Amino acid sequence: MTLRVGVIGTGMIGQDHIRRLTEVVSGAEVVAVTDADELVAKEVAARLPDATVHPAGADLIADERVDAVIVCSWGPTHEEYVVASIVAGKPVFCEKPLATTEEACSRIIDAEVEAGRRLVQVGFMRRYDAAYRAMKQVVDSGDIGSPLLVHSRHRNPSVPEHYTREMAITDTAVHDFDTVRWLLGEELVSATVLTPRRSRHGGDLQDPLLMLFETELGALVDVETSVNIRYGYDIQGEVVGEDGTVSLAETSPVLVRRGGTVSGRVPEDWRERFIRAYDVELQEWVDALAAGRGATGPSSWDGYAAAVVSDAAVEALRSGSKVAIDLRDKPDLYAKEG
Amino acid sequence: MTLRVGVIGTGMIGQDHIRRLTEVVSGAEVVAVTDADELVAKEVAARLPDATVHPAGADLIADERVDAVIVCSWGPTHEEYVVASIVAGKPVFCEKPLATTEEACSRIIDAEVEAGRRLVQVGFMRRYDAAYRAMKQVVDSGDIGSPLLVHSRHRNPSVPEHYTREMAITDTAVHDFDTVRWLLGEELVSATVLTPRRSRHGGDLQDPLLMLFETELGALVDVETSVNIRYGYDIQGEVVGEDGTVSLAETSPVLVRRGGTVSGRVPEDWRERFIRAYDVELQEWVDALAAGRGATGPSSWDGYAAAVVSDAAVEALRSGSKVAIDLRDKPDLYAKEG
Amino acid sequence: MTLRVGVIGTGMIGQDHIRRLTEVVSGAEVVAVTDADELVAKEVAARLPDATVHPAGADLIADERVDAVIVCSWGPTHEEYVVASIVAGKPVFCEKPLATTEEACSRIIDAEVEAGRRLVQVGFMRRYDAAYRAMKQVVDSGDIGSPLLVHSRHRNPSVPEHYTREMAITDTAVHDFDTVRWLLGEELVSATVLTPRRSRHGGDLQDPLLMLFETELGALVDVETSVNIRYGYDIQGEVVGEDGTVSLAETSPVLVRRGGTVSGRVPEDWRERFIRAYDVELQEWVDALAAGRGATGPSSWDGYAAAVVSDAAVEALRSGSKVAIDLRDKPDLYAKEG
Amino acid sequence: MTLRVGVIGTGMIGQDHIRRLTEVVSGAEVVAVTDADELVAKEVAARLPDATVHPAGADLIADERVDAVIVCSWGPTHEEYVVASIVAGKPVFCEKPLATTEEACSRIIDAEVEAGRRLVQVGFMRRYDAAYRAMKQVVDSGDIGSPLLVHSRHRNPSVPEHYTREMAITDTAVHDFDTVRWLLGEELVSATVLTPRRSRHGGDLQDPLLMLFETELGALVDVETSVNIRYGYDIQGEVVGEDGTVSLAETSPVLVRRGGTVSGRVPEDWRERFIRAYDVELQEWVDALAAGRGATGPSSWDGYAAAVVSDAAVEALRSGSKVAIDLRDKPDLYAKEG
Repeated sequence: MTLRVGVIGTGMIGQDHIRRLTEVVSGAEVVAVTDADELVAKEVAARLPDATVHPAGADLIADERVDAVIVCSWGPTHEEYVVASIVAGKPVFCEKPLATTEEACSRIIDAEVEAGRRLVQVGFMRRYDAAYRAMKQVVDSGDIGSPLLVHSRHRNPSVPEHYTREMAITDTAVHDFDTVRWLLGEELVSATVLTPRRSRHGGDLQDPLLMLFETELGALVDVETSVNIRYGYDIQGEVVGEDGTVSLAETSPVLVRRGGTVSGRVPEDWRERFIRAYDVELQEWVDALAAGRGATGPSSWDGYAAAVVSDAAVEALRSGSKVAIDLRDKPDLYAKEG
Repeated sequence: MTLRVGVIGTGMIGQDHIRRLTEVVSGAEVVAVTDADELVAKEVAARLPDATVHPAGADLIADERVDAVIVCSWGPTHEEYVVASIVAGKPVFCEKPLATTEEACSRIIDAEVEAGRRLVQVGFMRRYDAAYRAMKQVVDSGDIGSPLLVHSRHRNPSVPEHYTREMAITDTAVHDFDTVRWLLGEELVSATVLTPRRSRHGGDLQDPLLMLFETELGALVDVETSVNIRYGYDIQGEVVGEDGTVSLAETSPVLVRRGGTVSGRVPEDWRERFIRAYDVELQEWVDALAAGRGATGPSSWDGYAAAVVSDAAVEALRSGSKVAIDLRDKPDLYAKEG
Repeated sequence: MTLRVGVIGTGMIGQDHIRRLTEVVSGAEVVAVTDADELVAKEVAARLPDATVHPAGADLIADERVDAVIVCSWGPTHEEYVVASIVAGKPVFCEKPLATTEEACSRIIDAEVEAGRRLVQVGFMRRYDAAYRAMKQVVDSGDIGSPLLVHSRHRNPSVPEHYTREMAITDTAVHDFDTVRWLLGEELVSATVLTPRRSRHGGDLQDPLLMLFETELGALVDVETSVNIRYGYDIQGEVVGEDGTVSLAETSPVLVRRGGTVSGRVPEDWRERFIRAYDVELQEWVDALAAGRGATGPSSWDGYAAAVVSDAAVEALRSGSKVAIDLRDKPDLYAKEG
Repeated sequence: MTLRVGVIGTGMIGQDHIRRLTEVVSGAEVVAVTDADELVAKEVAARLPDATVHPAGADLIADERVDAVIVCSWGPTHEEYVVASIVAGKPVFCEKPLATTEEACSRIIDAEVEAGRRLVQVGFMRRYDAAYRAMKQVVDSGDIGSPLLVHSRHRNPSVPEHYTREMAITDTAVHDFDTVRWLLGEELVSATVLTPRRSRHGGDLQDPLLMLFETELGALVDVETSVNIRYGYDIQGEVVGEDGTVSLAETSPVLVRRGGTVSGRVPEDWRERFIRAYDVELQEWVDALAAGRGATGPSSWDGYAAAVVSDAAVEALRSGSKVAIDLRDKPDLYAKEG
C-alpha cells in the first residue's frame, strides 16, 4: 500500500521533499536516493530507515523497489531523468522547471505521448494552496462572469546574491504564469515586460517588473514582481470578471492591536506562505498514484507552456517589445487539463 | 434663514461647538454667549463677528436675538438652563449629561411635557456616526432577526488624573447605554458590573470594567470599558441576532504594508473617531429647527434614561449585585422615540 | 464674512453645488446664478433666499455682489468664464474639465500668470477624500520609500447610453490621472492603452481598459477602468514603494454575517463614495478665500496637465502605441503645487 | 518506526480518526479496532490493510501489536479504557470528554500519577489550530501586557434534535474553557451563566448563553454560545491585555465582490473550520510518541479541569448564581502544563 519513492537530487529542495514524504505525507516512504554529490546522498540516506544510495539517476529509476520518482536535481538534468522515468513506465514528480529549454520540454511531451499515459507531474504547488483553490472555484462557478483581467503581485522581501535579471521571470513570475493559465483554463499568447524605476535595494537588478500577457480569449494579465520589497513575502491576486471579482484575502491568522495600529502578519518567506501547499501537493500525488489514477496535477504540457511563456517574457524584457507566445499543438493526452 | 444660537458655557466643549457652528455647520450663527468666567466669554465673543456677552444664562435665554440655546456649562447647572429654555419656548441643545440627577432629568421632562412639544435635544453624538447608523439600518431591516445579544467595547488610550472610578460608567459607558437603547429601541431593565483584574496603567482605578444589562425583551448587553489601554481609542460593537450579526468594521482608511505587517491606524482619541458625528449632529439639529420640525435627536427621555441607567450601574459597581433599572412611565410626547 | 458666490450653469452638478453651498458648507451663500436655459436658472434662484438671475456669465462675473464664481456650465464654455473671472480678479472654481482642449487650458494658464496670483481651482475632488489624503500622508512620510509602481482601479456599475469609448479616459480615468500626479508629486510622461476582452455588458464600448503611464522619475502607473462591472462603484489603489506599500482600505462601515458570508457594502455610485470629498472640497475653498489665501486646491496647471494626459491617452487608445506626454514649461506661479 | 494504533470505538469520530491515521498522518497505522457493535468494527477493519478486531477494549489494550490507544467510545466508558491503557503502560489519546464525572477524571489522574509519566492526551484540538497558536504566541510574548479580559464566541448554524440545554456547556463551550485555560495558563475559579432572550430557532433550548468566568489572577472571561445562528460556524476570540489586544482574524481565503457587497465565506461547520487542527493534533501526537517524548498535548489534568468547569457551569445555569470552581491540588506530573 505504501508508495516507495526514489529521490534524484538530495540538495535543499530534495531533502525538504524527503522530510515531507517521511514526516508529513501519509502512505509513502523514500527507498532510494541519488545525488551528484554522493556524500550528501549517503548522509541523507543514513537518516532514513531503509534507503538505497544509487550512483546515478538511471540506477535509481531502474531499481525495482522504486514505484515512483521525484526529480529535484539541477535543472539541466531534468529532461534526462524525466524521460528515463517515462520510458521505465514510472510516475515522476519533477520540480520546476520541467526542463531548461522549450525543446527539452517538448521532447518530454513526446516521450509521454509515446507512453500513452500521464506519468509526469510538475511542481507548481500554488494549485494546491487553499486560497488559490477557492479563487478557482469562484471563477469556475461563473459567479463573476467571464474573466477579463487578472492582477497578480509577487513580492519577495529580498533575493540572494546570485539572482539575475531574468530570474524575476524564470524563477519568480513562472509561478504566476502557471497559476493564471490554470485559473483561467486558457493559454497565454503574448508577453510584454515593462521596467519601472528601480528599487535602491535591488542593486543592478531591474526590480520591480510589470509584465503583461494576453490570453487566448483576450483577457489581459498583469504580473508585478517586486523581489526586494523588504516588508515580507506577499502574494496578491485578483480576477476581474464581467460581473464581479475574486481576490486573495489577507492571510494573517490573528490581528494585534497595539501602539496605534491594528495589524496582521505578512508571511516572512515562501515557506511560510506555501508550506501547506507543498504538503498537499505531495499527498495528493501519492494518493493519486496509490489509487492508480496516474498523475493528476500540473502536467508536462503545463511545464512546457511555462517554459515557452518564460522564454517569451525574457525576450520581451530584452527587446522591450511585445513577443508572441507560440505553443505547439496540444496533444490529446493533455486535452482535459487546465 | 440663519439660526441664531446662544451658547451657555464657553469652556472647551462650548468653544468647540462655537467653532463648529461658525466654521463647519451651514445655516447657523452664534449671536450670544455667557460663561461663569465672564473673561473667557468675552474672549470667545471677541473672535465672533456679532456676539453679545450676557452676564448670566437667564439673560442669554431671554435675548430676543437668540433663536435656540446650546448648554455646555457645568453639569449641575444644566437643569436650570434647560428648563428656562423650555419655559421661554426656545429649542435647547444640551450636552451630556442632561442633568446630574434622576430627579433633575425628570423635572426637565415635566417641563417639556407641560410645554407640549419637543424642545430639548441631548448630545449623544454616536447616533450621528455613519457606522452606527449603518448598524441600526441592518438591525431595523430584520435581516439578522431579533437581537439577542449586544457586545460593546469602549476603549480609551488613557484618562486624565481626575477621572474617578464611577466615571467609567457616567462619562464613558453612558455613550454605550444610549447607543444600545437606540439600536434596539428598547429600555435597559437591569445592571450588573463586574470588576476584572486591574490594569497596571490604571492606578487606583477599577479598570477595565465589564457591565451587563438586560433589556425589556430580554436581550443581554455586555459593555467593556478599558480606559487605559494605550494602543488607541477603539470602539467596537456587535449586535447578535437570531439569523446573523452586524458589527462595526475597522475604521482605518488605508492599509500600510511595512516591516512584516499589514496595518491600519486606530484612532488616537474620540475626536478623531467621532468628530464627523459631532458635525452631523449639530447640522441636523440646525436643519430640523430651520425646517420647523423641532428637535428630532436624542430627547429629554433619552437623557433621563441614561441617567437612571448610570445610577443603577454605579450602584451595581458599589454593591456587586444586579440592580433593577426603574424608569417612570414614558410620556406620550416621547412615544415615537427610540 | 460670508462668501457670496455666483454659479454659472445650474444643471445637475450646478444645482448640487448650490445645495452644498446653501445647506452643507459654512460661510457661503449663493447670490447670483445664470444658465443657458434661463427658465432653469430662474427656478433655481426662486428656491434661494436672495439670488439674482443673470442673462449671461459675463454679467454674473461683473456683478459686484459676487465675490467668487463657480463654473458648472457645458465644458466648451469653461474657458470663456474662467478667463473672464481671472480678468475680473475674482476667484473661480471650475468643474472638470478646466477646458476641452489643451490650447484652451493653456490660455487659462496664461491669463492667470498674467494676473500674477492663483485664482483658479479645478474640481478634482478626490484630493479631499479622507482615504486618499491618508494615502498621500504615508507616501510623503517616506515610510514606504520612493514610489515605484501605482495600481489604480476605477470601477463603475454601469454608464449611461451616451457614454463613448473615449469617455473612459476623459471622464473616468481623468480622476486617476490627477490623483496619481498629486500622490507622487510627479508629472506623467507617457501613455499606453491596452484593450482587453470586452465585457458583454459594455455593448460597443471597449470596456474594460488597462492604461499604463510612466512618471518623470520612472514610476509605472497602471489604471484599470471597468465601467460596467455591475457589482458597485469600487475605487481601489495601491502605491508600491521600495520598502512597502500603502493601499486604500475597504470602505464598508459595518460587516454583516448572514447566510454563509461575512460581507461589507460596496458603494452604489460615486455620490456614495465621494459625497463627503465634494463637501470638504467646497468648504476648504470657501475657507481659503475667506482667509484671503486664494485658491489652494487643484490649479489651472493641474487642469491643463489632466487635459494633456487625457489627449495622449486617447491618442494611445486609437493608435495602439505608446504616446509621449509633452507639457509646456511650468510657470513659477504653480511651482509649489503637486 | 511506524506507530501501531488500536482504536476503541469505531463510530463517526473513531472512523474519522482511523481515516486520518491511514490517509493523512505520517508514521502511523491502525492495527486493531473494537466497538460495542462488533459488526461495525468488522466493517471498519475490513477496509484496513491489517487490523485485528477485538471483542473488547481490554483485549485491544492487551494486544502486543498495539503501541498506543485511541479512545473514541461512548463517554461513560472512557475511564475504564484510559485507566487500563495507563496500567498497561500504553499512551492513550482520549476524545472529549476525558470522563463523564469529576471523580472519574480524578481517578484517571491518580492512575497516571501512579504510573509516574504522561501517558494520556485529551482531544482538545483547538490548541493545534494555527490561529489560536498565533494568538497564544502573542499573549506569551508579553506584547499586549497581562491579560485582563477574554471574549470568546462559539456559534453553530444549528444543532441536532438530541442536543440538550446542558450540552451548550458540556459539548460546545467546553472547547472555549480549555482554550482559555491554555491561552492564559491559568485556571478558572468561578462560573456564572446568563440566559438572554431565546432564539426562535432554538425550540426549547436556552440559546444563546453568555457565560462568565474568573481566572486565578482575576481575568474575566465571557463565552457566548449561539448554537442556532444559521449563518455559519463562527469562532471569534479576543484577549484584552493591559497594552493591547489580540483577536482571531477572518478566515475566508478569498473575497468576492458581487451584487453590491464584498464578502468572505464563513465556515459551514466545525469540520471546515478545524479539520486541519485535528490533522495536526494527531500528527504531533504520533510524532511525540515516535520520538519517545510521551504525550505533550492536553493532559488528564486538562480533561479533569474541563470537567470541573463544566460541572460548575451547569450548576450555575441551573441555579442562576455564581458557582465556585474547586480543583484538587495539581500533581507535579502536570506542573509544566498550561
